[in-house]
Amino acid sequence: MKTLKDMGEHNAIAALTANLKAVGDDCAVLPLDDQYDLILTSDPLIENVHFFSETPPERIGHKAVCRVLSDFAAMGAEPQYLVVNVVASPAQDFQTLERIYAEFSSLWEIYGAEVVGGDLAQGPVLELHVFGVGRVPKGKALLRSGAKSGDHIYVTGPLGCSQQTGKQFRFEPRLEWAKELRESGTVTAMMDVSDGLATDLRHILKASGVGAELDSSEIPRVGTLEEALYDGEDFELLFTSPAEFDFPKVGTITGNTEELLLDGNPLKAKAFEHFRK
Amino acid sequence: MKTLKDMGEHNAIAALTANLKAVGDDCAVLPLDDQYDLILTSDPLIENVHFFSETPPERIGHKAVCRVLSDFAAMGAEPQYLVVNVVASPAQDFQTLERIYAEFSSLWEIYGAEVVGGDLAQGPVLELHVFGVGRVPKGKALLRSGAKSGDHIYVTGPLGCSQQTGKQFRFEPRLEWAKELRESGTVTAMMDVSDGLATDLRHILKASGVGAELDSSEIPRVGTLEEALYDGEDFELLFTSPAEFDFPKVGTITGNTEELLLDGNPLKAKAFEHFRK
Repeated sequence: MKTLKDMGEHNAIAALTANLKAVGDDCAVLPLDDQYDLILTSDPLIENVHFFSETPPERIGHKAVCRVLSDFAAMGAEPQYLVVNVVASPAQDFQTLERIYAEFSSLWEIYGAEVVGGDLAQGPVLELHVFGVGRVPKGKALLRSGAKSGDHIYVTGPLGCSQQTGKQFRFEPRLEWAKELRESGTVTAMMDVSDGLATDLRHILKASGVGAELDSSEIPRVGTLEEALYDGEDFELLFTSPAEFDFPKVGTITGNTEELLLDGNPLKAKAFEHFRK
Repeated sequence: MKTLKDMGEHNAIAALTANLKAVGDDCAVLPLDDQYDLILTSDPLIENVHFFSETPPERIGHKAVCRVLSDFAAMGAEPQYLVVNVVASPAQDFQTLERIYAEFSSLWEIYGAEVVGGDLAQGPVLELHVFGVGRVPKGKALLRSGAKSGDHIYVTGPLGCSQQTGKQFRFEPRLEWAKELRESGTVTAMMDVSDGLATDLRHILKASGVGAELDSSEIPRVGTLEEALYDGEDFELLFTSPAEFDFPKVGTITGNTEELLLDGNPLKAKAFEHFRK
């Protein structure tokens, strides 16, 4: 019997969705009307996996919603509505849920994405499943698949140590920057850094059929280079463009399909993956 | 410390969503464009709550998706896209997930609602969180709030014993009938029967500010009258209209706000509610 532990998260998702509409970017992009494409995404936040019983409720609510908002940023899209499924045990302290929902309201005021529905059901641990609905001007969503040899590689902020610094619970989804980058018309590929620069850049390389060379001295970091490359949950934007931007330029796209070099040497793969830890 | 068990599901949802956009129908209805309103809904399906380890994977997949499709039917709306969060333990047998996803594909062929994205995360038990996106002609969604004194009360099929008969895992979402009922232009209120006729009708009475008198001899049932009134998960449509329809007519709407009579006597409240069992 093959288990999820045997397969790992990414293989399992690939196998399950092989017969379904292509799912590979941060959000699904679907036709809506003459002006806009519909953007859909979802993220689960699960106790003992993504947060712990001592995490303040506001931080839980922030991470649950802002992970989804960051998915919209990753596409250069505008989030509009959120639907939230809460799972909790009968012994769940109600005030914790009230504080989580109060945070949802605060985030609505900042980012304009409103919780419009959801459900509450019984389960063994506290979970928040946030579904997001939004839009992007027709055909303008920024995908992972457009990077071209010679493009610069940018990140929007320092990477690494998001657990130690608490950034994983306080990060700002880069919606404004994402919109500006999309409107520049020069960004060829974009995503958010959720699994670490080394892992996430590989998604762009694979989707675009290109390679990349990173320059370690240019990677903005909080801790060590190792942490900047492999820690996850930074939620900065990672994008490629032939144009100049006032963001840290960490490397260059090459024509060597799926080859990832750091200072001229092959970079090893290593990343957090659900079920394999 | 007040817990979810102290409050019960309905009070908890009401309290949490008090400051958010009104959430009270089966789906949220939001402005989309000149022609259509956007319809959003979500339902969780949780092991040991909504299904058990011995439930065949196809039945789990069916219930997960068709509960959401039934929410669309409840509004007279058309489901278009589904996003699914799967939660599972590392020891989860992968074939079970493959069979669940194969059922999603079968249901797509029948009902036209396609799984376009989602996530897979680690947790203690198997869960499926299905989020649905769809549409309805502008201003035409059937709500719970339009029932008027003198309307007939209809249900679309026999009620009760859905656990014993297995209907809870095999029901057909009444999308076709729902569309016809909406297009008739005569339906004043509608929802699906998920918590039992007695409980769900009270939602219509409350939302519409009316009362109702049920005629026990007219309630189509699989088992006893008690089971037809209080069992849940029938997923038939419950609707009110002044017009004649070829569906079982189980009672009449009255002007006595929130008074629910069965054969002339007050009907007691009793229903499955999460956290209170």
